[in-house]
Amino acid sequence: MGKYVERAVRVFLNTGTRFPERIVWAIGMVKYSAAKANMELGLLDEKRASAIMQAALEVAEGKHSDKIVVDVFQTGSGTGLNMNVNEVIAERASEIAGVDVHPNDHVNMSQSSNDVIPTAIRLAAASAVLSELVPSLETIINSLGSAEAKYARVVKPGRTHLRDALPVTFGQEMGAFKDAFSKDLAMVREALEAVLEVPLGGTAVGTGINAHPEYPRRAVSILAEKTGIPVKPAASRFRAMRLVTDLAMLTAAVRSVAIDLWRLSQDLRLMYSGPFTGIAEVEIPQEVPGSSMMPGKVNPVTLEAAMQAASYAIALDSSLVQASLLGEFELSMGLPLAGYAAVRQAEIVAEALRKTAGLVIGRVEPRVERMRELAERSQALITLVAPIIGYEKAAEVSRMLYEGRSIREALKAVGLGDEAIEKLLDLEKLVKPGIPSLEVGRKD
Amino acid sequence: MGKYVERAVRVFLNTGTRFPERIVWAIGMVKYSAAKANMELGLLDEKRASAIMQAALEVAEGKHSDKIVVDVFQTGSGTGLNMNVNEVIAERASEIAGVDVHPNDHVNMSQSSNDVIPTAIRLAAASAVLSELVPSLETIINSLGSAEAKYARVVKPGRTHLRDALPVTFGQEMGAFKDAFSKDLAMVREALEAVLEVPLGGTAVGTGINAHPEYPRRAVSILAEKTGIPVKPAASRFRAMRLVTDLAMLTAAVRSVAIDLWRLSQDLRLMYSGPFTGIAEVEIPQEVPGSSMMPGKVNPVTLEAAMQAASYAIALDSSLVQASLLGEFELSMGLPLAGYAAVRQAEIVAEALRKTAGLVIGRVEPRVERMRELAERSQALITLVAPIIGYEKAAEVSRMLYEGRSIREALKAVGLGDEAIEKLLDLEKLVKPGIPSLEVGRKD
Amino acid sequence: MGKYVERAVRVFLNTGTRFPERIVWAIGMVKYSAAKANMELGLLDEKRASAIMQAALEVAEGKHSDKIVVDVFQTGSGTGLNMNVNEVIAERASEIAGVDVHPNDHVNMSQSSNDVIPTAIRLAAASAVLSELVPSLETIINSLGSAEAKYARVVKPGRTHLRDALPVTFGQEMGAFKDAFSKDLAMVREALEAVLEVPLGGTAVGTGINAHPEYPRRAVSILAEKTGIPVKPAASRFRAMRLVTDLAMLTAAVRSVAIDLWRLSQDLRLMYSGPFTGIAEVEIPQEVPGSSMMPGKVNPVTLEAAMQAASYAIALDSSLVQASLLGEFELSMGLPLAGYAAVRQAEIVAEALRKTAGLVIGRVEPRVERMRELAERSQALITLVAPIIGYEKAAEVSRMLYEGRSIREALKAVGLGDEAIEKLLDLEKLVKPGIPSLEVGRKD
Amino acid sequence: MGKYVERAVRVFLNTGTRFPERIVWAIGMVKYSAAKANMELGLLDEKRASAIMQAALEVAEGKHSDKIVVDVFQTGSGTGLNMNVNEVIAERASEIAGVDVHPNDHVNMSQSSNDVIPTAIRLAAASAVLSELVPSLETIINSLGSAEAKYARVVKPGRTHLRDALPVTFGQEMGAFKDAFSKDLAMVREALEAVLEVPLGGTAVGTGINAHPEYPRRAVSILAEKTGIPVKPAASRFRAMRLVTDLAMLTAAVRSVAIDLWRLSQDLRLMYSGPFTGIAEVEIPQEVPGSSMMPGKVNPVTLEAAMQAASYAIALDSSLVQASLLGEFELSMGLPLAGYAAVRQAEIVAEALRKTAGLVIGRVEPRVERMRELAERSQALITLVAPIIGYEKAAEVSRMLYEGRSIREALKAVGLGDEAIEKLLDLEKLVKPGIPSLEVGRKD
Repeated sequence: MGKYVERAVRVFLNTGTRFPERIVWAIGMVKYSAAKANMELGLLDEKRASAIMQAALEVAEGKHSDKIVVDVFQTGSGTGLNMNVNEVIAERASEIAGVDVHPNDHVNMSQSSNDVIPTAIRLAAASAVLSELVPSLETIINSLGSAEAKYARVVKPGRTHLRDALPVTFGQEMGAFKDAFSKDLAMVREALEAVLEVPLGGTAVGTGINAHPEYPRRAVSILAEKTGIPVKPAASRFRAMRLVTDLAMLTAAVRSVAIDLWRLSQDLRLMYSGPFTGIAEVEIPQEVPGSSMMPGKVNPVTLEAAMQAASYAIALDSSLVQASLLGEFELSMGLPLAGYAAVRQAEIVAEALRKTAGLVIGRVEPRVERMRELAERSQALITLVAPIIGYEKAAEVSRMLYEGRSIREALKAVGLGDEAIEKLLDLEKLVKPGIPSLEVGRKD
Repeated sequence: MGKYVERAVRVFLNTGTRFPERIVWAIGMVKYSAAKANMELGLLDEKRASAIMQAALEVAEGKHSDKIVVDVFQTGSGTGLNMNVNEVIAERASEIAGVDVHPNDHVNMSQSSNDVIPTAIRLAAASAVLSELVPSLETIINSLGSAEAKYARVVKPGRTHLRDALPVTFGQEMGAFKDAFSKDLAMVREALEAVLEVPLGGTAVGTGINAHPEYPRRAVSILAEKTGIPVKPAASRFRAMRLVTDLAMLTAAVRSVAIDLWRLSQDLRLMYSGPFTGIAEVEIPQEVPGSSMMPGKVNPVTLEAAMQAASYAIALDSSLVQASLLGEFELSMGLPLAGYAAVRQAEIVAEALRKTAGLVIGRVEPRVERMRELAERSQALITLVAPIIGYEKAAEVSRMLYEGRSIREALKAVGLGDEAIEKLLDLEKLVKPGIPSLEVGRKD
Repeated sequence: MGKYVERAVRVFLNTGTRFPERIVWAIGMVKYSAAKANMELGLLDEKRASAIMQAALEVAEGKHSDKIVVDVFQTGSGTGLNMNVNEVIAERASEIAGVDVHPNDHVNMSQSSNDVIPTAIRLAAASAVLSELVPSLETIINSLGSAEAKYARVVKPGRTHLRDALPVTFGQEMGAFKDAFSKDLAMVREALEAVLEVPLGGTAVGTGINAHPEYPRRAVSILAEKTGIPVKPAASRFRAMRLVTDLAMLTAAVRSVAIDLWRLSQDLRLMYSGPFTGIAEVEIPQEVPGSSMMPGKVNPVTLEAAMQAASYAIALDSSLVQASLLGEFELSMGLPLAGYAAVRQAEIVAEALRKTAGLVIGRVEPRVERMRELAERSQALITLVAPIIGYEKAAEVSRMLYEGRSIREALKAVGLGDEAIEKLLDLEKLVKPGIPSLEVGRKD
Repeated sequence: MGKYVERAVRVFLNTGTRFPERIVWAIGMVKYSAAKANMELGLLDEKRASAIMQAALEVAEGKHSDKIVVDVFQTGSGTGLNMNVNEVIAERASEIAGVDVHPNDHVNMSQSSNDVIPTAIRLAAASAVLSELVPSLETIINSLGSAEAKYARVVKPGRTHLRDALPVTFGQEMGAFKDAFSKDLAMVREALEAVLEVPLGGTAVGTGINAHPEYPRRAVSILAEKTGIPVKPAASRFRAMRLVTDLAMLTAAVRSVAIDLWRLSQDLRLMYSGPFTGIAEVEIPQEVPGSSMMPGKVNPVTLEAAMQAASYAIALDSSLVQASLLGEFELSMGLPLAGYAAVRQAEIVAEALRKTAGLVIGRVEPRVERMRELAERSQALITLVAPIIGYEKAAEVSRMLYEGRSIREALKAVGLGDEAIEKLLDLEKLVKPGIPSLEVGRKD
C-alpha cells in the first residue's frame, strides 16, 4: 500500500462501499491518456511514460483492483481514489521501467484530482449508459414494438381510475410504452451530450496552470480514441469542475426510464393478477415457485425486481441532487458519491430493462378470450350512444347495465335495432377514431 | 405600507406564494407575548405595550392580513415577514395609543427575526398538527376501528403479489390500517415534542443579548397560555435557531401518515375496480359523475384526491430536507420555506384524512357474496393440505386447480373425505391461526 | 354553480390549493379549439360553437376565475376541473347564444377529461417555460456573460474544499455559471419537445372513439395557432394519456436550473460574507435592512430568496415523480398535481432568476484589491515550483508559508532569484494554462 | 445450489447488489427460532430441529455466505432470499442430521416469506441501529459535550446570513449540535419501537394459518432471547406484513442525524476555511495530503466524507419512501430494497459519526486569538447601544464601522465614556442574556 493510501484508509470512512469497477476502469484510462499526452508534449520521458501507460491499462482491466481500497465516502474531490490509483500505478510502473516513478510528479503529471476525478466519473457514467443502458433500452423498445404489432387486434377493456372504460387493444398498450421508452432514450442521449464534456487539463482550479497549453486537447483526444467514448474538452472547464448538474440531469433521464418501467411493470402485474381473484388477462411464464409456503403459487418476480430497481434508481437520482449541492467555488465536493450513484443507477436500470424485455415482454401471452369477454362487459360501452341520445339519457341507461342487463338489452331499450347494435358493438371499430353511433341507424 | 416593507417587496421574489394564515396568526401571538413580557419586566411602558398587544391580536385574527404582503421566498431568516408584521403593528398601535410606536424599538423589543420566526413557524406547525392533523387521525382511526369490528367476519381472498393467497377478513384489512395510523399518530406526537421547544428570547444569535434574563421564560409562558399550545423554552436556543431538523422530523412523521393513506387508498381503489372488468369487491357510494364523456361511470374521486395529497405531502417533506440544509452558524436560512411547507403539509393531509374517513371508510360496503366466492376460488387453498402431503406434492395438485378443477375435487384427489373437506374449507377458521389439516382426518 | 361542481366541491378535498391561472387559461384555449374544430367538422352548429368559443376565451382571460372553484386535490384525471370549466362555459354560452348549451354534449363534445386535462397541463407548463423561464434564463445568461467579460482580469484566489488554491479570475467564475445555465436552457428546450406532444383527440382511452378522425389534427392545429405555442398531436396518444414522465423530465430540467442557481447563490453569499468576519470579496448593494435587531446589518436577501425557491423547485420535481407513478392502464392519475407542480415550479424559478440577474449579478462589485491581496497570500502558490522541485519538496516548503513566511521568501528558499520570482508570481499568467516554472530560470 | 435458487438467479436481476451480512444474520436467527419453536410445539422432530438450528446459526455467523447468491433486486416479498437460505440450511442440516431435511416442509415450517422477511429486515435494521448507530450517536454527543464545556469561554463572532453578528462562544456552537444529536437519538429510539414489532407467525397473509396458535409468541420470544434484541409480536401482523412505514420512519429519524451531521460538518469546514483566504478559526489536524497537485494543501477530508455519507443517507430514506409505496393488500412488495436501504443507511451514518467524533470533534483546536479578534471587529456590536439610542440612530452609526472606524470610536461618537465602553465591550458578558447598555452609564 502506498504512503498516501496507508494513511487515507484511516481517515476516510470505512463503510464497505467500494467504487464500481467501471470507475476504476475510467480512472485507469485517464491515467493512460495523461501519460501519453505528457510524453508527446515532451514533459515525460518515454521510459516512464510507457511504463505508466502499461500499468494504467492494467488498472483499467481490473488487474490491480484488490489494491484499490478506498471507500466511496472519502474526500469530496476524490483525491483518495486518484492518489490510490497514482500509487498503484507508480509502484507497478517502477517495477516495469526499473526506475523510480513518482505517484505525484510522474503519474499525476499535469493533473489534479479536481480535473481527473470529474473526468473519470463522467467517462464511467457515459460508459455505463452507452454499453449497458442504451442497448437495454433498444432491446425493450424492440420487444414492445413486436408486442404492439403482434397484439394490434387483441381487444381488451380500457380502464381509467381502474374502472371500466372503452376498449383498447393490448398492442396499443404495449405501443404506449414503446413510445415512452423511445422518448426516454432520446433524453438520455441529450443528457449524455453535456456529460461527455470533460474538464481534463483544467488541473487544480480550471485554469490549466502547470499543464502544457496543448495538453487538454491532446489528452482528451487520446482518451476518446482509446475508450471509444466520444468525450470532448469541456466548453467551460470551470463549470465542469465545480458543478455536476450535468450528471444530475443524466440521472434524471435515467429516472424517467425507471418511472416508465415502474408503470409498465405495474400494469402487467395488474393484468397478471389472479389467477382466480384478479384480472387475469395475461399469462407470464414463471420459472420459480412464487411462495415458500403456498404451493403452486407463481408470482411476477421479474416485474417486482424491476419495480424495486426503478425505486432505487429514483433514490439514486436524489443522491445526485444532494451531491450536486455540495461544494463551493472551484470544487464539486460530492464527486465520489456522484460517480457511484450515476454509474450504479445506469447499470441497475439496464439490467432491469434487459430482464423485463427478455423474461416478460418477450413471453407474455394475452388471454385473448378473457380480454374480449371483459371488453364486451364494460359498463362504458354505453358511451357509444351518447352522441345520439345525450350524456344524461345515456347515464340513466347505464344504470341498467349496472343492474345486470347486457349492453345489447340496454341499447335496444334506447331504440337501436339488432343490426345497428351489432354494427355498433364491432369491437375492432371501437379501438379507432370515429363516431360509431353516427354511422348506424336508429330503429325509429 | 411601512418603510421596510415598501423596499422589501422590490427585492424579495414575487412568486404569488403567500404565507398560510396560521403563520400570520403565530407571529401575531409571538408579538403579543413579547410585548406583555417586556411590559411586565418594566422595559416597555404600559400604554405602548397595551396598544401593541391589541394590535398583535388583531394581526393574529387576520384583521390586517391584506397588509401582510411579503412573499414566502424572501430572506432566509424571515426578517421580511417579521418586519412586515412589526410595521403593521407599529402603525396600528400608534393609532390606538396616540403616541409613536416604533416597529423596531418597541414592537420588536427584546426580539430578533432569528428568534421570532423560528418560534412562530414552530407554533404554527404545532397548531396545524394539534388542531387539524391529530383530530383527523383520530377520526380515521375510529372509522377504521368501526370497520374492523363490523367486518370482522366478512371473509375475502388474501392477495400477495396481487396473486391468489389464503383468505383474510375485510375487517382484518381495515384493522391493519387502524394500527398503522395509530403508530403514525404516536410518532407525530413524539416529533411534536421537539417542535414545541421554541427559541424565543435567544434574540440575534441565541445568547439572549439585549433581552432581560427573565424574558425568555416569561415570554414563552405567556405564549403557551394565550395560545393553548404547550410551547416551552428550548433546551438549547442555539440549536433551535440554527437547525430546523425537528420540523423535518415532524414532516417525516406526517409523511408516514401520507404513505399509509396512499396505501389504504390504493387497496380500496383496487377493491373498487370494475364494476365488470375489475375486482369489484366493494361499493363506495359516489356523489359525482366520474367522467365527462362516459355516462354512468363513477370513479373513486376522494381516494384519488387523497393519493395526490399524499404525494404532495411526500414532496413537502423533501422541501423540509432542503430547507434544513440551508444556513450556517447562528442561522437556519430556510425558515420561511420550512414554515410554509410544514404548515401546508399538516393541513392538506388532515383534510385528506377527514374526507377519506367520512366519504370512504364510513360508507364503503363490502360485496360480501362476491368476496366469499372469490375466497373460495383462490388457488392458494391447496396450501391447507401442505402440512400433511408436503409442499411438492401440493404444488403438483395445485395445477389441477389451475386447469379448472375445484378445490374440493383437488382435495378429494389427495385423499380427503367429504367431511374432512368441508371441515377444512370452513372459511371462518381459515382466517385464524392454526393448522387445519392436522385437525381433520384423511380418508385413508 | 353548475350541477356537477356543486356536488364535486363536497367530495374533493378543500385544502385551499387552487390551480394557477395559467392552467385555467390553458383549458379555456383547449375548449375554444375543440369547439372550433367540431364546428368545422360539421358536428356542432355555428351558433353554439361561436358562443362556446367566446365563453372559452373569456375563461382563458380569467374573466370567470371566481367560478373555477375546485381544489387541486381532486379526482386524478382532473375531471373536476374539466367539468367546472364545461359548466361555466355552458352557462355563459347559453346566455350568449340564447339557446341551451349543454356542458357535456356541446362544450365537451369530442372530448374527455382524459385527453383535455393532459393537454391543458402540458400547454400550461409549456407556456410557463416559454413565456417566463426561457426569457429569465436568457437574462441571467446575459448578465453572467457581461460579468465574465467585465471581470476577465480581476484575479482572486481559487478555493477548493474552501481551502486556499491557485488563482482564478472573478470572470472565470461567472463564466462557469453562464455555461451551466446555457446547458440547462438547452435541456429545458429538449425536455419541452416531448411536452409539446398533446393527446387532444384521444378522448376517453386514447383511441379517439366518439371523435371525428380529422378532429385531433384539426383541434391541435387550432390550439397551436391560437396560443402561439407549437403543440402538436402526440405520436402516441396512449402514451401521453397514461404517463406524465415527459413532465417529470421537464421538472428535472428546471431542477437543474435550480441547482445551478443554488450553487451560484451560495458562492456569492460566501464572497459577500463579512463585512469583517468573513471573506468579503464582493459588495452587493442591498435595499433593505437585514436585521430587525442588529442596526446597519445588511444581508444577501435576494440570494437567500433564490436558494429557497431553488429548494422548493427541487421538491416540486419530487411531486412530479410521485404524480408520475400514480395511475394504471389508460389513465395518469396524478394530472392535477402534476400540472400544479410543473407550472408553479417554472414560474417560481423564473422569478428567482430574474431577481438574481437584476439585483445581484447586474450589481455585484468585486473588491478588486482585497481579491488580489488574498490571491497573493494563498498557500497554494507553492504549487508553481512543484514541476521543478517535485511534489514532496514543495510540500515541505509550503510549511514555511503556513508558519507565516511570504511566498517570496519561500521561493527564494528553494533557490529562485528575484527576477524569476516576480515573473513566476505574475498573477495574470497564473489564471491561464501553462507551466510557469519551466519558463523561469532557477538562481543556481 | 438448491433447486429453487438455481432457477431464481436466472429470473432475478443480476445487478451485483448483495444483501448486507446483517440481513443474512437476521434471517439465520429467524430460522433458528422457528425451528426451536416448532420443535417445542411438537411439530418438528428433535433430530431435524437440532440440525436446522445448528445450520441456521452457521448461516447467521456468515459461514455459508458464499452460497447466499441472490441479488437484492428480486421478488418483492424476498422469497428468493428466504428460499436461498432455506435450501442452504436444508442441505447443511441434512448433512448434520443424516436424514433428509426439506427446505419448505422442515426449514420453512410454520413460515412464509411474507412473515419471515419482514421480520428479518426489521431485526437487521434494529441490530444496525442498536449495535452501531446508537453507540456512535452517544460517542459524538459525548465529544460535543466535552467541546461545549472545554470551549465555554472561547468567544467568537456569531454569524447570521454569513454576515457579522453578535458574539457567541465556540462551546455554545458545539452545544447546539450536542442538543441536536440528543434529540435525534431520542427519535431514533422512538422510531425503533415500532420496528421491533415483528410479524413472525403471521405466515402467508397475517392470519397465522398453518402455524400453531402458540407459535408466534414462542418463536418471537426465542428470537428476542437469542439475539438480545427486544423484538416483540406485532400488535397487528396484518399491518407489519403489508406496510413498512415503520422502517420509513426509522430511516427518517436517521435522516435527521444525517442532516445535523451535514450542518455540523459544513460549519466546521467554514471555520477551517483558509488558511489564508478563508475564515480560519480552527485547526483540524489532518493525516493525509489534501491535493495530488498542490503540495502542502490540507483539506477537511473526514468532514467531506461525512457530508457525502449524509447525502447518501438522505437518498436511502427516499428509497424507503418508494419501497413503502410498493405492494397491495397482504404484501409489502419492496421488502428486499427496504431492508437493504435501512440497514446500509444506519451502518453508513454510524461510521460517519464515529469518524467525525474521533478525528474531528475530538481534535479540533479553536484559534482563540483569531476568534476574539474577529468577534471584536464584528459590525454587529453596534447593536449593544440600540436599546439606548434606538435602532435608526444605531444604524447610522454602524456606517462609521463600515467606513473603517473602530467600535470604540463609534461608541464614543454616540456619547459613551471610556469606562462605559470597556464595560460594554466585555465579550464574556455579551454571550449571555442581558441588556448591557442599560447597565452602563452614558457620558452625558
